[in-house]
Amino acid sequence: NKRNTKLSSIQYGNRGMTLEEDLDITNKFYLQENIAVIHKKPTPIQIVSVDYPQRSAAVIKEAYFKIASTTDYNGVYRGKYIDFEAKETKNKTSFPLSNFHDHQIKHMRQVVKQNGICFVILMFTLLQEVYLLPAEKLFEYWDRKNNGGRKSITREEIMEHGYEIPIGYQPRIDYIKHVDEHFC
Amino acid sequence: NKRNTKLSSIQYGNRGMTLEEDLDITNKFYLQENIAVIHKKPTPIQIVSVDYPQRSAAVIKEAYFKIASTTDYNGVYRGKYIDFEAKETKNKTSFPLSNFHDHQIKHMRQVVKQNGICFVILMFTLLQEVYLLPAEKLFEYWDRKNNGGRKSITREEIMEHGYEIPIGYQPRIDYIKHVDEHFC
Ligand SMILES: [Mg+2]
Ligand SMILES: [Mg+2]
Repeated sequence: NKRNTKLSSIQYGNRGMTLEEDLDITNKFYLQENIAVIHKKPTPIQIVSVDYPQRSAAVIKEAYFKIASTTDYNGVYRGKYIDFEAKETKNKTSFPLSNFHDHQIKHMRQVVKQNGICFVILMFTLLQEVYLLPAEKLFEYWDRKNNGGRKSITREEIMEHGYEIPIGYQPRIDYIKHVDEHFC
Repeated sequence: NKRNTKLSSIQYGNRGMTLEEDLDITNKFYLQENIAVIHKKPTPIQIVSVDYPQRSAAVIKEAYFKIASTTDYNGVYRGKYIDFEAKETKNKTSFPLSNFHDHQIKHMRQVVKQNGICFVILMFTLLQEVYLLPAEKLFEYWDRKNNGGRKSITREEIMEHGYEIPIGYQPRIDYIKHVDEHFC
């Protein structure tokens, strides 16, 4: 099909790129073109011990990964606050909600309450499909799970309530286009 | 004077609090009261080696501090993007521009271009004075320095072009009040 042709022409399938790398490249493009200022937050680390050798840089000798208290990406688009999390699955028919954590959902609810633009970017890696799903929709599926419902979002639900983002060359994953169309 | 009485009554002077700790407490308050969602970004770390011991958490064994490519704080207030950096000085008469780095100024310029609300919070620790200075003003002093001018902002300039934030009890450093008055 068309997409596969396009993808193979940029050797997308073969390069083993991750969604995160694609988003980094996309955000860099947005920054260079003055389209938006979006950055990935650093991984939070609990530092336990640091060496300060003479004449060279400090070396962290013992540290641990901490659980992030927010989503991974945020920034500004035309004065508006944008906040999102990006997740991949190898599943083909549904997206497991176990990819998200309570504190991330809590953070997204706070952002929505504060009128920020908030969503998730979901990638079915084996299908090479990427969707933007508004946070409010994610909350519905999250609450359904907590009320004893299914532990995932079906691909059909994502197709119905989300917006597919075609994988392109430049920008790679043009999510801002959907922000314009559906949030502004 | 009045401020010192108030401060000593909450033992402010004695507890050795840093501006960063005060801002953390302030942001926590904003979050709990649904006033704003502002977080400090984690320190960026370059991880070189990680141990994965059986039955326990991964241990980072070698890592280095990286230079941040953005400011430390950002988030959302009534849908609007807020971005700032906070710095302290022990000087009493001027604020050294060496507290800022080129890449932070560059980031702030990008945010302003994107219509984000951007400022710095400057504390004269020995005077216990805190000011909010809009990024646009900081750029003027930065450019003055780069054009051969003085390497600091005088306290008088900050008093004239910034807004003093009284140090309070709850919220500790109520900067959102000034955002409301001067940016919205
Ligand atoms: Mg993440
Ligand atoms: Mg800093």
